[in-house]
Amino acid sequence: MSKNILIINTGGTLSSVMKENGLAPGLTTIDMQKELHMVSGDTTLEIEDFCSLDSANIFPEDWAKLARRISEVRNDHDGIVVIHGTDTMAYTSSMLSFMLRNINIPVVVTGSQLSITNPVADAMENCRCAIHMAASGIPGVFVAFNRKVILGCRASKVRSLSFDAFESINYPNVATISSLGMSIDEKAVPVRNGVFHLSDSYSTKVCMLKMFPGMHRSLLESLAEQGYKGIYIEAYGIGGLPFVKHDFISTIEKLISNGITVVIGTQCPYEGSKMDVYETGKRSLEIGALQAHDMTSEAALTKLMWILGMTDNSSEIRDYYSINIAGEINTPLNQ
Amino acid sequence: MSKNILIINTGGTLSSVMKENGLAPGLTTIDMQKELHMVSGDTTLEIEDFCSLDSANIFPEDWAKLARRISEVRNDHDGIVVIHGTDTMAYTSSMLSFMLRNINIPVVVTGSQLSITNPVADAMENCRCAIHMAASGIPGVFVAFNRKVILGCRASKVRSLSFDAFESINYPNVATISSLGMSIDEKAVPVRNGVFHLSDSYSTKVCMLKMFPGMHRSLLESLAEQGYKGIYIEAYGIGGLPFVKHDFISTIEKLISNGITVVIGTQCPYEGSKMDVYETGKRSLEIGALQAHDMTSEAALTKLMWILGMTDNSSEIRDYYSINIAGEINTPLNQ
Repeated sequence: MSKNILIINTGGTLSSVMKENGLAPGLTTIDMQKELHMVSGDTTLEIEDFCSLDSANIFPEDWAKLARRISEVRNDHDGIVVIHGTDTMAYTSSMLSFMLRNINIPVVVTGSQLSITNPVADAMENCRCAIHMAASGIPGVFVAFNRKVILGCRASKVRSLSFDAFESINYPNVATISSLGMSIDEKAVPVRNGVFHLSDSYSTKVCMLKMFPGMHRSLLESLAEQGYKGIYIEAYGIGGLPFVKHDFISTIEKLISNGITVVIGTQCPYEGSKMDVYETGKRSLEIGALQAHDMTSEAALTKLMWILGMTDNSSEIRDYYSINIAGEINTPLNQ
Repeated sequence: MSKNILIINTGGTLSSVMKENGLAPGLTTIDMQKELHMVSGDTTLEIEDFCSLDSANIFPEDWAKLARRISEVRNDHDGIVVIHGTDTMAYTSSMLSFMLRNINIPVVVTGSQLSITNPVADAMENCRCAIHMAASGIPGVFVAFNRKVILGCRASKVRSLSFDAFESINYPNVATISSLGMSIDEKAVPVRNGVFHLSDSYSTKVCMLKMFPGMHRSLLESLAEQGYKGIYIEAYGIGGLPFVKHDFISTIEKLISNGITVVIGTQCPYEGSKMDVYETGKRSLEIGALQAHDMTSEAALTKLMWILGMTDNSSEIRDYYSINIAGEINTPLNQ
């Protein structure tokens, strides 16, 4: 029997058209019907419009709404494809990985670098890959882009212009497409560790800061004054922060003692944090900072928003943050 | 006649030793004398200690002091090697590219991922490459790492653990080392467009912010209240920002009208901004935001600090920001 796939369109470049002020979302699923059916293979497609937004305009409230919609319809379809702009796709796919915990069907986020109306676009190819993955029966949240399928919580947009915009960070691709068809790396598919549970709450009081030489400690202090409950810091290298002339460690210690959760990761796109090596990293751990380990920044940030939406108990937060929810983290055993 | 190279040691992993709290800087140039002379080839080395800091602790005041020191001694040596931690190396090499404008000798920043005392370290190899480049007679500021020489204002630390930690972003390597020795790509060496000029002033009121879904506009507004004069925003993709439900464009417009310089770049590590394509980017340009084009974040940020240290005239700032100072930017002709 042919697989039944639901396509949910949120907008983005794939469905964009040229308007007076430049490219902007505009096509509905009705407008794209012909193109989508051309790449549907032997699946049966249902299509629906969710919103029509440049993904720079997708916010946490949209993630929750999208997660609820997917939760509602998940047993009516063999798989779901979400058409989404590339700009915040990796944030959305990361948060959906947490909110749709142990999802029982494939949810595949895709988009493109050129509009589906452009004859040389990557749009059709990416939809073809996404629909094929959505029909695979492999449960989880994924990103399909440029003939690769990436675990949703491992995707990051690393190139702003190329069709090969996304990479799987510190983790193998889940599938690749070649002349052999789609090859799935089964070891890269996380094992479901429970039944599906919609978990759509999140904290709006979380901030990301990228460290730079010359950052004032008052910037961190001002976040406490603004009522933030969680701060994800993209520190240097494997997790370094200044602590000599400008002692950020003591500033962070104060934030933590005021009940703010501070997570330290890295601004290097590849290879993650490892804070037990240098003096600076060790001191950060001693004062109670959490670390992102090999998570992407997109996953490290959305995981913090998600956990702080569920609990404000610091030991629960610590515990949740270090365990693997959806394949996003590989925590060393000794930490 | 043998070339005379000065080695200036600022600390970092290369000169680190195991201490009670983990690895920390400790070796002086005296301690490293034997190792440095082993890789000096036919050059004559002079060595001096500048500071002994994990580079997370290097701040703008150190850049200015280092630039002044290099300026003082530049005519006494054929080239200079700066030993520096990897964490902020690309920020330092970017700012030195601006402060040491049209430097007349090679200034090569290097470091390593393991201490020079570690028998399997990359330290000796990186020093060998840096000293060889410093003796090349090719003027400019460079980073030497893992058998590559990268233009100082194009380097970025992209891997937190590997020896291959740095990449040349949106620009070819200046030199690579292979079994053919060091091959220099002459087209990648920027042409000096004037005589040397030490330009060591900088603004301390510059901030970098990485955009994320759920960022509050009040975070930007709080920067204005904190007295920042320049903000570099790592936006999405080719320069996208939210402007529908949460209108960041109007918030940025207010900042600009209050005399704050706002530069928009991308959080994608590769391929830069291109803000004339989408509605969101075009609107940002219309309200007077500057764009980073293909600059690294390290160069985009330090260039803003450097320019705001020289002038507060908005048309001068705009003009300086878009011209190419040291090879850091390739501005399209029509913008």
